[in-house]
Amino acid sequence: MTSGQLKVIAFDADDTLWVNETFFREAETSFCNLLEDFMPHHSVNQELYRIEVGNIELYGYGIKAFMLSMIQTASVITENKVDFSIVDKIMEIGHDMMNKPVELLDGVQEVIEELHGRYKLVVATKGDLVDQERKLAKSGLDHYFHHIEIMSEKRAGNYQKLIKHLDCHPSEFLMIGNSIKSDVLPVIDLGGNAIHIPFHTTWEHEVVKHHIDEDSFISLQSVREILDLPFIKD
Amino acid sequence: MTSGQLKVIAFDADDTLWVNETFFREAETSFCNLLEDFMPHHSVNQELYRIEVGNIELYGYGIKAFMLSMIQTASVITENKVDFSIVDKIMEIGHDMMNKPVELLDGVQEVIEELHGRYKLVVATKGDLVDQERKLAKSGLDHYFHHIEIMSEKRAGNYQKLIKHLDCHPSEFLMIGNSIKSDVLPVIDLGGNAIHIPFHTTWEHEVVKHHIDEDSFISLQSVREILDLPFIKD
Repeated sequence: MTSGQLKVIAFDADDTLWVNETFFREAETSFCNLLEDFMPHHSVNQELYRIEVGNIELYGYGIKAFMLSMIQTASVITENKVDFSIVDKIMEIGHDMMNKPVELLDGVQEVIEELHGRYKLVVATKGDLVDQERKLAKSGLDHYFHHIEIMSEKRAGNYQKLIKHLDCHPSEFLMIGNSIKSDVLPVIDLGGNAIHIPFHTTWEHEVVKHHIDEDSFISLQSVREILDLPFIKD
Repeated sequence: MTSGQLKVIAFDADDTLWVNETFFREAETSFCNLLEDFMPHHSVNQELYRIEVGNIELYGYGIKAFMLSMIQTASVITENKVDFSIVDKIMEIGHDMMNKPVELLDGVQEVIEELHGRYKLVVATKGDLVDQERKLAKSGLDHYFHHIEIMSEKRAGNYQKLIKHLDCHPSEFLMIGNSIKSDVLPVIDLGGNAIHIPFHTTWEHEVVKHHIDEDSFISLQSVREILDLPFIKD
């Protein structure tokens, strides 16, 4: 990456701009509590994970998909020998997640404000349309962004469409996110640039072991460090 | 609308390009059958509608939202005095909907082929990201479209963003769809053009009584009639 080359900076949303995975972990714990008479927490969690991943193709990502997977897991684990009222409790776990306030990660507001006006800023996230629009509205950050792209999956093809739509060359595009699998690898593959900023919690499904040795890739500890990068314009 | 003025033609998807509402009506019947020991069909349907509409803000549109609303309706109607296995049957109703083949409406393929190359063709639909992308892929029509816009709601603001993104003037934009509320009124309000092609079944929530007397509005019986309109280029 060289100074002056970048035109567009795209941010992942969940666990890059704001806390997300933490709320899923909390919800999983509440769900395991509901079923602890049937199975130990660890086994409930494993079964839920298996069912969630099995449902991705049909349901995609997001809280509605998670709610349906919790209900299915309750059906499988209890062999339908559970009071139907557990459904209300599962719905409540989902609604609590939907109604959570948006908690910006440390430094995000400041970095977005600094970069705004110098670059075209974009959000590129996967997940459920309604969930992500709701969080963006609650974040108070929406007016900084030129475009919001919500993808069903973060595949190279979807990034390619986004880059084309933004009318820039891949080398002028920088993606910032917490997932090597979703935010870094597909963008690097296209000839774009990527910064990885890990979040303390990563969903098992997003974890990849990958060593990246490319000039177009940087790993940082905090979003604040972006402002110190030599190729970022003053 | 005058000849040569139009640049972009946007199509609604559900019940404009392909059958959709029919499958929801069939699913509702299957759901009512599941609960007929508790309540007559008509009353189950009314309760489901009330719950669905109440959930739109939280869930948006689409099959996952519909599945969650069916499960909630079962909880409310039976006061949780129903066997948990009903959940599996509700899930099956939802999965059947997701796995339905896409049935193009009569004339759609021919009209899209005719208009392709003469205008920038776009899909502008609301609903669930995964549902709509799946149907578009199954339709075999996706390569005809320059852009696919999936909105959480078809409000004027979202159409405005789309028109801006397509780099055209509202007067150069024509929206074709089966819903006066979602496809016609917001577009006319923005100064765009709209064609209404009713589908034989309309969801109660989409029904509006509205008389439109504007030069920018036309009502047709079949999508085929588009090709006979005087302002459509040969």
